[in-house]
Amino acid sequence: MIPVAMEQVRLADQFWGRWTETVRTKLIPYQWEALNDRVEGAAPSHCIRNFRIAAGLEAGEFGGKVFQDSDVAKWLEAVAYSLLQCPDPELERTADAAIDLIVSAQQPDGYLDTYYIINGLDQRFTNLRDQHELYCAGHMIEAAVAYYRATGKRKLLDAMIRYADLLCRVFGPGEEQLHGYPGHEEIELALMKLYDITRDERYMQLAAFFINERGRQPLYFEQETHDVTRKWLNFHMRYQYNQSHLPVREQTEAVGHAVRAMYLYAGMADVARQRQDTELYTALKTIWKNLTRRRMYITGSIGSSHYGEAFTFDYDLPNDTVYGETCAAIGLVFFAKRMLMLEPLGEYGDVMERALYNGVISGMNLEGNRFFYVNPLEVVPEACEKDEEKHHVKPQRQKWFGTACCPPNLARLIGSLPDYIYGTDAKERIYVHLYIGSQVEVSLGERKIRLALQTELPWDEMTTIQVETEEPTEFEIALRLPGWCEQYTLWINAEEQAAEWRDGYLYLRRCWRTGDRVQIRLAMPVVVVQANPRVREDIGKAALMRGPIVYCLEEADNGKDLHRIRMRADVEYQIEHCPDLLQGVTRIREQGEILLPWEEDSLYAGSYTARYEAKELTWIPYYAWANRETGEMRVFARVRP
Amino acid sequence: MIPVAMEQVRLADQFWGRWTETVRTKLIPYQWEALNDRVEGAAPSHCIRNFRIAAGLEAGEFGGKVFQDSDVAKWLEAVAYSLLQCPDPELERTADAAIDLIVSAQQPDGYLDTYYIINGLDQRFTNLRDQHELYCAGHMIEAAVAYYRATGKRKLLDAMIRYADLLCRVFGPGEEQLHGYPGHEEIELALMKLYDITRDERYMQLAAFFINERGRQPLYFEQETHDVTRKWLNFHMRYQYNQSHLPVREQTEAVGHAVRAMYLYAGMADVARQRQDTELYTALKTIWKNLTRRRMYITGSIGSSHYGEAFTFDYDLPNDTVYGETCAAIGLVFFAKRMLMLEPLGEYGDVMERALYNGVISGMNLEGNRFFYVNPLEVVPEACEKDEEKHHVKPQRQKWFGTACCPPNLARLIGSLPDYIYGTDAKERIYVHLYIGSQVEVSLGERKIRLALQTELPWDEMTTIQVETEEPTEFEIALRLPGWCEQYTLWINAEEQAAEWRDGYLYLRRCWRTGDRVQIRLAMPVVVVQANPRVREDIGKAALMRGPIVYCLEEADNGKDLHRIRMRADVEYQIEHCPDLLQGVTRIREQGEILLPWEEDSLYAGSYTARYEAKELTWIPYYAWANRETGEMRVFARVRP
Repeated sequence: MIPVAMEQVRLADQFWGRWTETVRTKLIPYQWEALNDRVEGAAPSHCIRNFRIAAGLEAGEFGGKVFQDSDVAKWLEAVAYSLLQCPDPELERTADAAIDLIVSAQQPDGYLDTYYIINGLDQRFTNLRDQHELYCAGHMIEAAVAYYRATGKRKLLDAMIRYADLLCRVFGPGEEQLHGYPGHEEIELALMKLYDITRDERYMQLAAFFINERGRQPLYFEQETHDVTRKWLNFHMRYQYNQSHLPVREQTEAVGHAVRAMYLYAGMADVARQRQDTELYTALKTIWKNLTRRRMYITGSIGSSHYGEAFTFDYDLPNDTVYGETCAAIGLVFFAKRMLMLEPLGEYGDVMERALYNGVISGMNLEGNRFFYVNPLEVVPEACEKDEEKHHVKPQRQKWFGTACCPPNLARLIGSLPDYIYGTDAKERIYVHLYIGSQVEVSLGERKIRLALQTELPWDEMTTIQVETEEPTEFEIALRLPGWCEQYTLWINAEEQAAEWRDGYLYLRRCWRTGDRVQIRLAMPVVVVQANPRVREDIGKAALMRGPIVYCLEEADNGKDLHRIRMRADVEYQIEHCPDLLQGVTRIREQGEILLPWEEDSLYAGSYTARYEAKELTWIPYYAWANRETGEMRVFARVRP
Repeated sequence: MIPVAMEQVRLADQFWGRWTETVRTKLIPYQWEALNDRVEGAAPSHCIRNFRIAAGLEAGEFGGKVFQDSDVAKWLEAVAYSLLQCPDPELERTADAAIDLIVSAQQPDGYLDTYYIINGLDQRFTNLRDQHELYCAGHMIEAAVAYYRATGKRKLLDAMIRYADLLCRVFGPGEEQLHGYPGHEEIELALMKLYDITRDERYMQLAAFFINERGRQPLYFEQETHDVTRKWLNFHMRYQYNQSHLPVREQTEAVGHAVRAMYLYAGMADVARQRQDTELYTALKTIWKNLTRRRMYITGSIGSSHYGEAFTFDYDLPNDTVYGETCAAIGLVFFAKRMLMLEPLGEYGDVMERALYNGVISGMNLEGNRFFYVNPLEVVPEACEKDEEKHHVKPQRQKWFGTACCPPNLARLIGSLPDYIYGTDAKERIYVHLYIGSQVEVSLGERKIRLALQTELPWDEMTTIQVETEEPTEFEIALRLPGWCEQYTLWINAEEQAAEWRDGYLYLRRCWRTGDRVQIRLAMPVVVVQANPRVREDIGKAALMRGPIVYCLEEADNGKDLHRIRMRADVEYQIEHCPDLLQGVTRIREQGEILLPWEEDSLYAGSYTARYEAKELTWIPYYAWANRETGEMRVFARVRP
């Protein structure tokens, strides 16, 4: 499968339109202010200032984290996607100026990392394990490719080609070259993007080198000198932290820092596809299975532990001490999409959709100016304040972070949604992976096909696709039948049809002509979802889903002590679309019950029988939680047996 | 109430006899080896070596923690109690030699702390917040008092009197004196013990000074200079950590480091009793209520969080990330006993008993050579290994610790059990607080009364008390009616009797004469205990108790995945005394059930109905867990509604 480039797609979706609009009008300007240290009461970014110092325009010391450069890179990438969908000369001028500044800091040999330019170039590439140079390079390459695709302007692209060329000289199998690879993966998938538009084989070779070298003995990270001993090295995790514990083809589980893991797997998938490396794909399938069947939250969030922002072990999915970093859910979308391009299996699309509608967009408030790093499935505000083990969990989104990876990552993912909706084999098939309103133009051989997709999702069931062809053409439209959908009805030109189902897709082959219309109704009842009994934290509990949306209980609707609530599986659920609630959501009501508190003031009692009273429960979409007053929240509630 | 000194009590109990015997024959010799760094594979203690260096007998650097001296002090105290119950000339010679060594390190002005003697006396008393000088002094005073009581030997006592006199000069309200108090409380209760045997008012005054000064503004700890910034100062806890956030009379909650809190409250209770300070007792009652009705585990363990080894907030009692330090449960026994001496309320005895039979002795294995610092109520060994947030929880007891406070603390508490069984008003009443087999001699006015208590507890229901008087004497025997006992039968001289119940005690007044016999049967059915519904972690779950013993499920009896088990409240429980199991325990069997695993390999499913199958469950006493192969354990199991 090859991607349908976002240049061919125009987004027109009620649900996602609001998010992309928020990114364009709120998040991108807000982040620009943050990058310039102009958001009051927020942790300073130092990002732009670092480039000014590196370029000799200002005196001063490097500020922020070693990976600070990547923030402006991700911002630029998001700007590019926004300009593509919605031209904006003023924004483009701001971006051009930022690019001028960035490029003016570049060294004669192509090197570009403000931390080392400011602190001493002699130390560059000496600590790949901790110092994020290749990570920053990767993000800047992604920005350069995106900006070139959006505007045709090559200034940043050419600069990053010079940097990539330097990397090709420094790293590689040669005797004079470094045999290292990044502590934080990212450059791999970036080099594959650079390869995609330049078709320069060296970039693909370097990406493959980084991937294949990782985890080989003797371990590169043990041969480097490091200023600090990382705590995780003394813990069970050790080199699992950055997935260098084993050569990647021998890895079978999703381990370590969750964002690093996703970026690595995404890069591996790119290399596997371009090189038709089935061994690499086989390794990825094993990891995928472990990840999605053992280590993923119902929201598509991943990373069970604050410690190392990392995976822990099979079926260990605590709801309250979870990490579930926004960036990790975003990384899961990257990974899932690339798996889909390797093989059209519905489950890849299912996971992508699960993360997008839940654990990704929960990272931002509805206004677009507050952010979660951690996305918990259960919150008691007092615990976040008074129990240090839950201190990383915040009951309200924050203005900005010292490590501000998540907000710009959200901006670029939401901005690039058009990249995720369609696929094609470029010959006789167009895939619809996500039901997101949009128009697309796809070339099948010599012919251009246009589809216009309109949908009521995620709040209602109907999707319509209008076909436009230059002339009647036989091809297949492959519609993903979501994993959550147990019943569907399909019409072609208002006539109900059966369709071939294969691995999660419905294949509609015919000679299509302009005016043909496909309609599909994806039944969307409220579903009581239980977790595998091996998940300790969810035993005796259930969550509610409707379509792709995971729901939650909030204190604002249901009062305190949500743990005392029991939902009932045997009642009717009322669905209620509320256009004015939380910028428009469908909420769910049911007759549940609540355990009555004790009258006596004691902690333990022997002769007590649990007494419940009826209580109307109100569920809202998980992504929209914490947009009202601070309070408790939970996704999994106890269920009356 | 005044205490019945342990010199008047002779222990003869089936259950506790085994523990005191283990302390005498295993723990005390084992600890002596540990203090001398002779236990292979265990963290070195450095303790004796530090004294040798401080005494100039050896060259070298101070080893171990700043409070290392306290380990030998607690060992000496345990030795004293052991010698009192069971003379042992060789052990006494070893202890005498240790005392010679300790005293030979004492400075001319009485100062005695090897850390500062070795590292520089100019720094002494400059960092009370962190450096544990007064804590070490307190433990050595306790050792000195105990050794004097046991052997009549004054060498260590005189040395510690000299040290206490120094402290009385250094600390106090005078202009030239330091207005400080210890970061880790302990000296307060120790000075009260010293006052008890010397009747020197200055020691009581200093104890009261430390207590009354604590938490006053300006805060002493903010005026000291400190080498390090403590992490907890940046967290919610701040000065709650060492209970100096408020003057003690204004404190209402059990906060901060749990061991420190207990030692403080115990010292406060001593001062309140000796000075008849009702304001202080009122403050203690408020704290007691918060502690026992909001922040105590069913096992008598306390301290919900690893972070700061501390309390968190009301009803926050996680079973798996709990700290529950052995020393904190021991401290709770100290506190409860002193509350009992202030006012004969049954609940004080209940808590003392709860901690003793469960959260205290769980700290040691049955052999007496492995120890828990942390006493969890739920363990999954894989989580202890792979989830850093549960890394402090160990699935097996350890040989020794760098900070080895718990093992010697256990030794001295178990050794001093005779101090906890009885009380008296010295006029007309003898209290029986704990049903532990023993003989006691109590003076009521001019008359000596002897009681001989025989009991089947904790495994069976019958207790018999034989009275011996010089001549027929009218007085009251007050028997604690345990909170767990809903039904009792009382006989005096084989004749069933009613008795006056008041605040948890049965008061039996009559003219007692030699040969009188009281018998009481405390009904001991298996009780399904639930936690207050506000305790999030125990909702929908229950524990089993029988008499004072809390039970648990272990993997060794019940297989893996204990979370999938549900107990049933509506079945018969089989009680089975097994003399050969775990050195003799009564275990409980019941017909429970287990949730069947899924056939499909997925994490979340919508159309699933929970299927259970019958499973015989075996419960063992909590204190005896982890004496077989490593495996899962849990106290609270889900209960079928």
